[in-house]
This record gives sequence, structure tokens and C-alpha cells, in this order.
Amino acid sequence: MSEQSGEFDFIRSLQNRVKPSRHLRLGIGDDAAILSESPPQTLVTTDMLMEGVHFLIPPATPQQVGHKALAVNLSDIAAMGGTPATAFVSVALPRARPAAFREEVFTGLQSLADQFQVALAGGDTNSWDGPFVISVTVLGIPTFPPVLRSGAKPGDWIMVTGELGGSLLGKHLTFVPRVREVLLLQESVKLHALQDISDGLSADLFHILEQSGVGARLFADRIPVSLAAIKSASEKRSPLGHALGDGEDFELLFTLSPKDGERLLNNPPFETRLSHIGEITSNPEVLLRQANGREIPLPRLGWVHSL
Amino acid sequence: MSEQSGEFDFIRSLQNRVKPSRHLRLGIGDDAAILSESPPQTLVTTDMLMEGVHFLIPPATPQQVGHKALAVNLSDIAAMGGTPATAFVSVALPRARPAAFREEVFTGLQSLADQFQVALAGGDTNSWDGPFVISVTVLGIPTFPPVLRSGAKPGDWIMVTGELGGSLLGKHLTFVPRVREVLLLQESVKLHALQDISDGLSADLFHILEQSGVGARLFADRIPVSLAAIKSASEKRSPLGHALGDGEDFELLFTLSPKDGERLLNNPPFETRLSHIGEITSNPEVLLRQANGREIPLPRLGWVHSL
Repeated sequence: MSEQSGEFDFIRSLQNRVKPSRHLRLGIGDDAAILSESPPQTLVTTDMLMEGVHFLIPPATPQQVGHKALAVNLSDIAAMGGTPATAFVSVALPRARPAAFREEVFTGLQSLADQFQVALAGGDTNSWDGPFVISVTVLGIPTFPPVLRSGAKPGDWIMVTGELGGSLLGKHLTFVPRVREVLLLQESVKLHALQDISDGLSADLFHILEQSGVGARLFADRIPVSLAAIKSASEKRSPLGHALGDGEDFELLFTLSPKDGERLLNNPPFETRLSHIGEITSNPEVLLRQANGREIPLPRLGWVHSL
Repeated sequence: MSEQSGEFDFIRSLQNRVKPSRHLRLGIGDDAAILSESPPQTLVTTDMLMEGVHFLIPPATPQQVGHKALAVNLSDIAAMGGTPATAFVSVALPRARPAAFREEVFTGLQSLADQFQVALAGGDTNSWDGPFVISVTVLGIPTFPPVLRSGAKPGDWIMVTGELGGSLLGKHLTFVPRVREVLLLQESVKLHALQDISDGLSADLFHILEQSGVGARLFADRIPVSLAAIKSASEKRSPLGHALGDGEDFELLFTLSPKDGERLLNNPPFETRLSHIGEITSNPEVLLRQANGREIPLPRLGWVHSL
């Protein structure tokens, strides 16, 4: 972690403002951070967000961008069944933006970090004449054994948290990563396969199916379509089409035994909506069962012409 | 770690090309990497390089940029007295660059990773119409107790590896981080304070002095001036001025007891040049003793008008 000569180092200036954390022996201010005595395993994820690709300012506020940059990484740690512990933040700040800009980005980032007791442990500050770029790396701890994409078994229920589709109308900037939910799920049941929905329900389901070597049947009338998916609908694409195909929902997609699935529905461990949307099959096909009972192949990107 | 829908994911495509590593239980391909059973402590560092700021292509080749992006992070781990273990790479690729571009960046990165047995363990691939941005995070293991910037003691010798100045003529793209040297140093002697020279000898010495609450006296005629510093010299700035002020040397700057310093000079543990350039003082001043015995205050950025 270096400093551009003669330039105010934003990350280092945070040194006295970030709170101490039990996860850190040494945070910002030396060549590298030192984590506290390590847990038996460490999870690591990284995501880069670029202005003009992942957000526009406006309509996004700098706070929202800071929030999102951390939130997508917390969602990845949750998607392994882990708890986030430390975050490292690198930024390319546009020179044309005022000094308040980076403060606002930090406010959004720090506020979410505080909510989940994540320590901001280091980073790298740069300025340039290009658009804003922020790259965050998060380290986490698997509270329970990590849940991979590869563990889905024929007969498993497929479930999701929350509601899907239309995230671009706002949720992609403000979503709360399902860190709390994944912990409560693991306290209640045994998850077989797990990931977050970042590319879209259909695309991310295919990741689980491919890595597990199985197929699936989704029930069209059980997919939790969000209000934003309904608002986003057009002649080209129905609300269900948005729920299946839109990215950046950042909900949890997981499989588990039918018995555990029923236990969750009968005794949900949190307020966040839980939906049983399908089942894992040994047949490698991926089918969408419509309300009329007719089954159609589900394309990877969820764009079903007839929906 | 997510994927832009419909886009070839470069990092994930590396899944089958990167070698297995004892540091990794699970690498590229799920929501996060899982490190192997953890060492007692973990070091973490992150650096972002941007086209037009940290490099230009040309004169830099894509391989050199990949090399540099990893090398600056390995240098930070070395500067804590640690050994690098895993690397996470996020990129914003310019759409205008050919597909070969990212392959070449990877070649430079992988070649250096192989040299130091660092596992490429994850990342995030993005494309845009902006310049090339690459952000790397490296986790390392302190083989010996980490050496901080804050441990310099009055009476300590100040030493550096290699030769200083003029790195922009080429070394900043091709330098080999002092990973091997720092391990051999720690096997021979007890380092009190340590960092890599990224901002320039003078600026980085000030980091050590401020964090240790001490001062220093440098001997002008013992500073190892590189050939590139001599080539860079002009009426405005002497070779010594370049050695003191130029950034991106990525050499090791450290302090240790005079007895240990003498032991190193009498029995150097490696071929890389070692120089005894000064001493730590309890007086908080920072002085440069010139060949004629005259002492002048050393400015933070190393720009001494009379040099």
C-alpha cells in the first residue's frame, strides 16, 4: 500500500477514524495489515466497480456507491456461508470531483461496515482524470463449514430469500447483503449449495447446477417477483422474465433437503421472505413449470420469449 | 466475485490454468476463495495501478504491467518481513484492446507469481471504455514476527538494498520484489524497522522516523546511486537528488543494531548490494551529512536545492 507523493492519502487519513476490531492486530498505516490470530479458515473475495458500468453519479449518490462497493463483497462472503471480518478498499478518484466526494463514498462504506462489524483494514488511494473506480477485497470467517455451489443433490428443494427482478430501479445501490440471514439459516438447517444472485436467478442457478452435475425444475408461479420487476415490465419482457433474468438482486439462492425446507417454511428464522421455487433433479435438463403445468426449457439468461 | 452477464470471464477462465497451491483449499470458481488451514497470522496488502498514472502502454508492455501490479504488492508483503502466499486480481479492461492484451497481462502476472510460489486465487473481470485499471490484493505469512515501521531505535544503523533513483527509466516495470532478500536478512539478523521504498528514500525514511519517534543522520556519500539516477540527472537535480527523491525503487529500507549491521556487511546473505547509509538519532532532526562533513536538514521529499 503506497502513497502518491505529495498527495493527501485518503485511506491513511482514515487511520484515526476507523474503530479498533478484534479481527485486526494492525490496520491502516504500515506496508500491510496484520490480521489477529487467524480463524481455522479464511474466505477471500474481491469486486471492482466502475463509474459508467456499475453505477452513474447521479442518479447514484457517492454514499450509495461506497455502500454498494462493500455490499457486493459482503454478499459474496455470505454466499459461502461466512461472516465478513475485514475490508480493503482501493480507489481511483477523479480529480474533477470535490474533496467531499471521497468523504461521502467513505460514509456509505463505513456505515455498512459498522452494521456488520467489518473492520476497514487498509487500501490504496489514487487520483486521476478518469472515471471513479473502487475495488474492495473482503476477508471473512466461515462460522459453519463453507457452503459451495457444488453441493446440490437430486431431490433438494431450491429456495431464495427476498424478491427478485428490477434491481436496477434502485435496489442494486441500497441492498442489505444477506449476512445475517445466512447465519440464521445455518443455525436452523443444513444448506447443500449456496450462492448469491448477482448475474440473475437463471444464470446463477446454472452455476450451481453445472458445478453440482445436476438439473432443476423451477415453478414459475412460486418465483417471488418484486414490485420493481413489475414496474420494469414491458411488451418485451414480463415481470417473471425480469425476476428470472435481471442481475444484481444479491439475494441468497440455496438448496437443501425437503425436510429442512419444510422446517424453514414452518418456522422461518427471520422476517425476510423465503420462497420454495423449485427442485433439483438428476436429469440434467433445466425446466420451468408454468402455472398451467406445461414445462419449458429454461435458458441460461432467463430470457423466455413466451413469458 | 461476480461476472458481467454474457461476457467472457477472464479470471474464471484461468481456473484450469493456475496451479494448485498448498495455500488454497478452494481457488477461482465459487463466490469466494477458501484459504488452507490458516497460519497463526495473515498479512494483507492491496494496490491499484491505473493506465496513464502508473504506466503508459507503450512504452510499458502488457506483460510488464501485469508484473508490476503483482510486484508492488509482493514488495509490501516483503516490507513487513513476510512471504506472499495468495493473490486476488481485479481488472477493468479497455474494450478497444484486443483479447491478447489480457492474456499478456496475465502472462506477466503469472510468471512472477510462479517465481515466488504465489497462488492466483480469485478476482473480478470487467470491461469498459476507460483506461486499463488493475487492482491486486496479496495475502502473506509472516515467517518471522512482522517488522513494522515503528521499531527504529536511536543508535540503529540505517541500511538499504540495491541502488536508488531513476526507476522511471525502466526499473519500476521490471523490478524483482525483495521477497527472497527479506527472508535471508531475517535469518541472519534482527530487523528493528522495515519498509519498502515506494515514495522515495527520503519520504519513506520519514515514515519510519515518525512512526518510531526518532530522527536520523544520512551519509550522502554512502547512498547507493543507481546508473539510472545518473542518467536522469539534470541541472535541476543531481544523481543524489534522484536517489533521495525518486519513488518506485521498491528496495528495502531497514534499521538494525550496529552489531547486526556489521555482521551483514562482513557476511552478506545474498548478492544484492547492501549499503549502510546512516544512523537513527534520538534527536528528532533529519540531517544529511555531506562528504565535506557539513550537515544540512533533509527535506521530506528529498529535494535538496544545493544537491
